[in-house]
Amino acid sequence: MTLTSDLADTVATIRAEVAHLHAELPRWGLVVWTAGNVSARVPGHDLLVIKPSGVGYDELTPEAMVVCDLDGNLVDGDHSPSSDTAAHAYVYKHLPEVGGVVHTHSTYATAWAARGEPIPCVLTMMGDEFGGEIPIGPFALIGDDSIGHGIVETLRNHRSSAVLMQNHGPFTIGPTAKAAVKAAVMCEEVARTVHIARQLGEPIPIDPDKIVALYERYQNVYGQPEVTDR
Amino acid sequence: MTLTSDLADTVATIRAEVAHLHAELPRWGLVVWTAGNVSARVPGHDLLVIKPSGVGYDELTPEAMVVCDLDGNLVDGDHSPSSDTAAHAYVYKHLPEVGGVVHTHSTYATAWAARGEPIPCVLTMMGDEFGGEIPIGPFALIGDDSIGHGIVETLRNHRSSAVLMQNHGPFTIGPTAKAAVKAAVMCEEVARTVHIARQLGEPIPIDPDKIVALYERYQNVYGQPEVTDR
Amino acid sequence: MTLTSDLADTVATIRAEVAHLHAELPRWGLVVWTAGNVSARVPGHDLLVIKPSGVGYDELTPEAMVVCDLDGNLVDGDHSPSSDTAAHAYVYKHLPEVGGVVHTHSTYATAWAARGEPIPCVLTMMGDEFGGEIPIGPFALIGDDSIGHGIVETLRNHRSSAVLMQNHGPFTIGPTAKAAVKAAVMCEEVARTVHIARQLGEPIPIDPDKIVALYERYQNVYGQPEVTDR
Amino acid sequence: MTLTSDLADTVATIRAEVAHLHAELPRWGLVVWTAGNVSARVPGHDLLVIKPSGVGYDELTPEAMVVCDLDGNLVDGDHSPSSDTAAHAYVYKHLPEVGGVVHTHSTYATAWAARGEPIPCVLTMMGDEFGGEIPIGPFALIGDDSIGHGIVETLRNHRSSAVLMQNHGPFTIGPTAKAAVKAAVMCEEVARTVHIARQLGEPIPIDPDKIVALYERYQNVYGQPEVTDR
Repeated sequence: MTLTSDLADTVATIRAEVAHLHAELPRWGLVVWTAGNVSARVPGHDLLVIKPSGVGYDELTPEAMVVCDLDGNLVDGDHSPSSDTAAHAYVYKHLPEVGGVVHTHSTYATAWAARGEPIPCVLTMMGDEFGGEIPIGPFALIGDDSIGHGIVETLRNHRSSAVLMQNHGPFTIGPTAKAAVKAAVMCEEVARTVHIARQLGEPIPIDPDKIVALYERYQNVYGQPEVTDR
Repeated sequence: MTLTSDLADTVATIRAEVAHLHAELPRWGLVVWTAGNVSARVPGHDLLVIKPSGVGYDELTPEAMVVCDLDGNLVDGDHSPSSDTAAHAYVYKHLPEVGGVVHTHSTYATAWAARGEPIPCVLTMMGDEFGGEIPIGPFALIGDDSIGHGIVETLRNHRSSAVLMQNHGPFTIGPTAKAAVKAAVMCEEVARTVHIARQLGEPIPIDPDKIVALYERYQNVYGQPEVTDR
Repeated sequence: MTLTSDLADTVATIRAEVAHLHAELPRWGLVVWTAGNVSARVPGHDLLVIKPSGVGYDELTPEAMVVCDLDGNLVDGDHSPSSDTAAHAYVYKHLPEVGGVVHTHSTYATAWAARGEPIPCVLTMMGDEFGGEIPIGPFALIGDDSIGHGIVETLRNHRSSAVLMQNHGPFTIGPTAKAAVKAAVMCEEVARTVHIARQLGEPIPIDPDKIVALYERYQNVYGQPEVTDR
Repeated sequence: MTLTSDLADTVATIRAEVAHLHAELPRWGLVVWTAGNVSARVPGHDLLVIKPSGVGYDELTPEAMVVCDLDGNLVDGDHSPSSDTAAHAYVYKHLPEVGGVVHTHSTYATAWAARGEPIPCVLTMMGDEFGGEIPIGPFALIGDDSIGHGIVETLRNHRSSAVLMQNHGPFTIGPTAKAAVKAAVMCEEVARTVHIARQLGEPIPIDPDKIVALYERYQNVYGQPEVTDR
């Protein structure tokens, strides 16, 4: 398939953004080796841009990024797409408001996932970012729609932008790829902080009304007026 | 409002210092993404210089810093002030000896805050820097004076330069912004070390008289004669 | 011994690769000071290339690497070989499919080794990479064949590419040195994640059939077609 | 006091070495802010070279290092000596075989010190480096000979090159300053690894005879023939 000239320009911009955002994953300690990926929707098209499979973070140039359709088939690019592409594609297909998806095996979030235990909302920054607990998604094997289906069913009726897939690790979503990366960073940070709090006793719960107040203020007020990524 | 020429020079110097000090927060692992802020009082004026809201640490140039009055209103700058500005402003208004304030969600300090448990003074370096335990402040929502009030009421009668706001995280103060940053770094370090000590048993208490002796010696003797930031 | 001209070219290439791969050990936090080593088999010869003993990671040039025979004797190089050379050599001698060996004292893997407890397979990424639990090898003193023998006897009938030698630390193997380094990175990551999961309760087991499915898919499908190192 | 020309050359070399070695402390995560120091004996003179007090690691040039006598008095230099100088000086005065001393508050070692609990020897790398457990020294206040006395009395009859001063932190010694820095790095690493092992159960003890065998081999065989720092 050849991309039209207009679309090629858009895709080139998104490839550069997705390549650039991958550098945030090792920067914040979310990944080892090649184990994590960022994707972005191509607005107005049934396409996404994602990391190639098994390529190191040092080699992730814009040109190395691949373009796939929303069934996960390769449309443009010199490499095989990430083996998690089907899950990303499923999310874009079923959650039209999502513009970016991130998957990592970040340590503390994955530890909660291994126990199948949601992270309780006991931090104001967790209320700000996630509006409540971070939920657990089902155990699902790679190879068909199971992972994507599990993500969508868990997040569809939830304020949280993160889901911990059981025995597997976190997936995060956002209106943009940058917002999804931020959610991945914050997910690991709250997973770590609540874990450490719990090691020496029980954290104090936050009143659910106050969690909602924190979430609504943060989503509407925080940041610079012109900034669209939360 | 236009700053007078003299004041503009002073503010430019403080903007550079505050921008520079923000680099210490990621350097010592105290913050992720944009979640932490440093401010400094403008000496002799009812003004403070603080980080803009939601701007990444890589973009924190001196020019990006904003000037606010002690009610938290923007006086000079191209960005919105940090959403924590009201709390910083309240501290400067009510504690005239304070020249700098720092707020982070550093992991171990925030974990103690989530349990609402003060950090006991079981390390000589904690006696040196904090003169005793690090206390807990009340749960308070952002949006009015509650956070600032909680900080001031907790620290007013305490040797500690750090307070852990319940379910939220640490605020630290100092005679200068650099001293407040140092207190933030040391607060996280003692929060981590005492946490780890407690994981395998009970730390040995230090006699209160000896804590006072450590504190008084350190505050008066340590460092170079010409250095004013502790 | 003088290397023939053809062999000298091959060895020069492998020396550069082994020197380069040593940089991955501090990069991923697997080693402190000089405590870890990577080796590669010289294909078609009873030779290996390994780190010299007690030399810092900053000084590991290709020229500093040493060539030994499969009894661990120095064949070419200006330094003494790593004190772990006998163990590496034993592995190459008895496991002909192995092209690379790595030894570290990475923190979490060594902690499991200190308790003599295998790491249970409760993470999908662990199924992918190791195909099941990571086993414990016997306690063995340095100085004769005991360590090499323990590694070979433990891994010979096991899917895992990593073994935790009791009270000592992990050894990993792979078809190439890069694959063995990847196994060392993943071994520490799963050791850390499962440790953290276990601190607050019991991880959920993964069905053994599903572990096999994950392993077989990953070993055959993952990565780029032209990439030989898994 | 003016140094003679010969001595000035020797001291300049040692100043450069001590300044350089300070960079290893933040590199291996042993210190925050300015809290740690390295010293070296001036061979053949009752003098030592040490870090100045309260100066950041970025500013530690050779010229900033100070020279003191073995009572801790300043002999040469533009800054006040480290507030720990008296302890270093006492060690050099009473242990003539010591050529370097390091003091840090490294996190895990300090956590053992807070409980007053020696680190048991359950790792082969601990047998190699320390020849047994790392002992606890007494609680001692800064300001007189108590800290130095506690270090010397604890280490005088011990194979260990590290002592954990109760509620305070580790001091390490070595034939050279570099060896003492290595001991500080290894002390924190074994403190961390044994802590983590103990979190989920009891480590397996190593037979005392085997610990001695490890220690004797490592101290005599490891490293390059020409290398003097272990």
